[in-house]
Amino acid sequence: MLFHVLTLYDELIEEYKKTGVIGRAVTAGHIDINPVQIRDYTLDKHGNVDDYPYGGGAGMVMMPQPVCDCVDAVKDGKDTKVVFFTPRGRVFNSEIAKEYAKYDELILLCGHFEGIDERAIEIISPDEISMGDYIITGGHIAAMCFMDSVSRYVDGVLGNNESSEEESFENGLLEYEQYTRPYEFRGRKVPDILLSGHHKNIEKYKKERSLEVTKLHRPDLLEDEQN
Amino acid sequence: MLFHVLTLYDELIEEYKKTGVIGRAVTAGHIDINPVQIRDYTLDKHGNVDDYPYGGGAGMVMMPQPVCDCVDAVKDGKDTKVVFFTPRGRVFNSEIAKEYAKYDELILLCGHFEGIDERAIEIISPDEISMGDYIITGGHIAAMCFMDSVSRYVDGVLGNNESSEEESFENGLLEYEQYTRPYEFRGRKVPDILLSGHHKNIEKYKKERSLEVTKLHRPDLLEDEQN
Repeated sequence: MLFHVLTLYDELIEEYKKTGVIGRAVTAGHIDINPVQIRDYTLDKHGNVDDYPYGGGAGMVMMPQPVCDCVDAVKDGKDTKVVFFTPRGRVFNSEIAKEYAKYDELILLCGHFEGIDERAIEIISPDEISMGDYIITGGHIAAMCFMDSVSRYVDGVLGNNESSEEESFENGLLEYEQYTRPYEFRGRKVPDILLSGHHKNIEKYKKERSLEVTKLHRPDLLEDEQN
Repeated sequence: MLFHVLTLYDELIEEYKKTGVIGRAVTAGHIDINPVQIRDYTLDKHGNVDDYPYGGGAGMVMMPQPVCDCVDAVKDGKDTKVVFFTPRGRVFNSEIAKEYAKYDELILLCGHFEGIDERAIEIISPDEISMGDYIITGGHIAAMCFMDSVSRYVDGVLGNNESSEEESFENGLLEYEQYTRPYEFRGRKVPDILLSGHHKNIEKYKKERSLEVTKLHRPDLLEDEQN
């Protein structure tokens, strides 16, 4: 899986590419990340990529020319799927992450400032994705979130011991509480059942806790399940 | 506003601190970001911060000792609010971002691997926040999202020309489409009303488009408004 990340902040994406689970997946060849600097594609003689909005209003808007030319260059004649991060997009979740994990190649288009000229969006016709009902300073943050979530479902990214099946949102539930060594910490002990060695009881306990945690924190997930 | 970010990936946070709107806000002194390496606080002689989960299961769990000692060190006797990123947390949005923007100082605790030993969470008793219904490889990505969104509401971070009031989710609506130069691009022209210079009509048009975009992409936001 190859992610092209079209942004004004390619240096942050370069650093992200080296970090943690993602860094190991890149080194092992399971995924690759290609940060692309949109500014390199502007025809503006001062190197600008943004200008004032027509009709007035706050902030600057990214001009259509550098954005469209950058996408065209990265597509290089191919029909590569483009994902654009915008508050009006489809609200992202784990199921959508699994869908995108099936692609061999994706172009992630990051908006900056007040956004991208609408005509560029019409021409590129990307999938529009929102990472949540909040505003961030640019699409580069959304792109890291997206790659992080999607990559977990790409074969080989998680080791055999890190399967995603017991995670929150799988089976519509949140995960049970986790415990590790030491057995006692600041007077608090690990629940005895987890030390019993009785696998059937442990699995039953984990399922009960998972249901309990979901009921307490996100009862709406259980309602969704029933519909 | 000072964000302490407790993570295993402090180098990525260092790079984030230099980037775009956030970088300018740090330089201008409106916000500051203090990346803290949790590993520096482990008492494990091999420098480990994680161990196998009690009761079996996928992945590794962060031990309570380095996490609690790291939080204690950063708090340094003060009662600083701690925010922990977890799928079971309160689902983040723009309204919650505004609440956190009122704090002078926040500790952002990032979980890695399968999560943090539950006893550490009990002891630290943080606000639990979820950035969306998807799993990411670690809390460092959530922390960047959170800082990005919260910082926009901290005085001075957005310039006078970048006010957050016309953004999506303000007034419960998505934003209208944006246009900038050139007037014509690949055969597509900017809507004439935006060039009319008639401010009242332009404002009316923007409001109509904002409502239309919301109806088309996120009708649920309008339903929420009516309740």
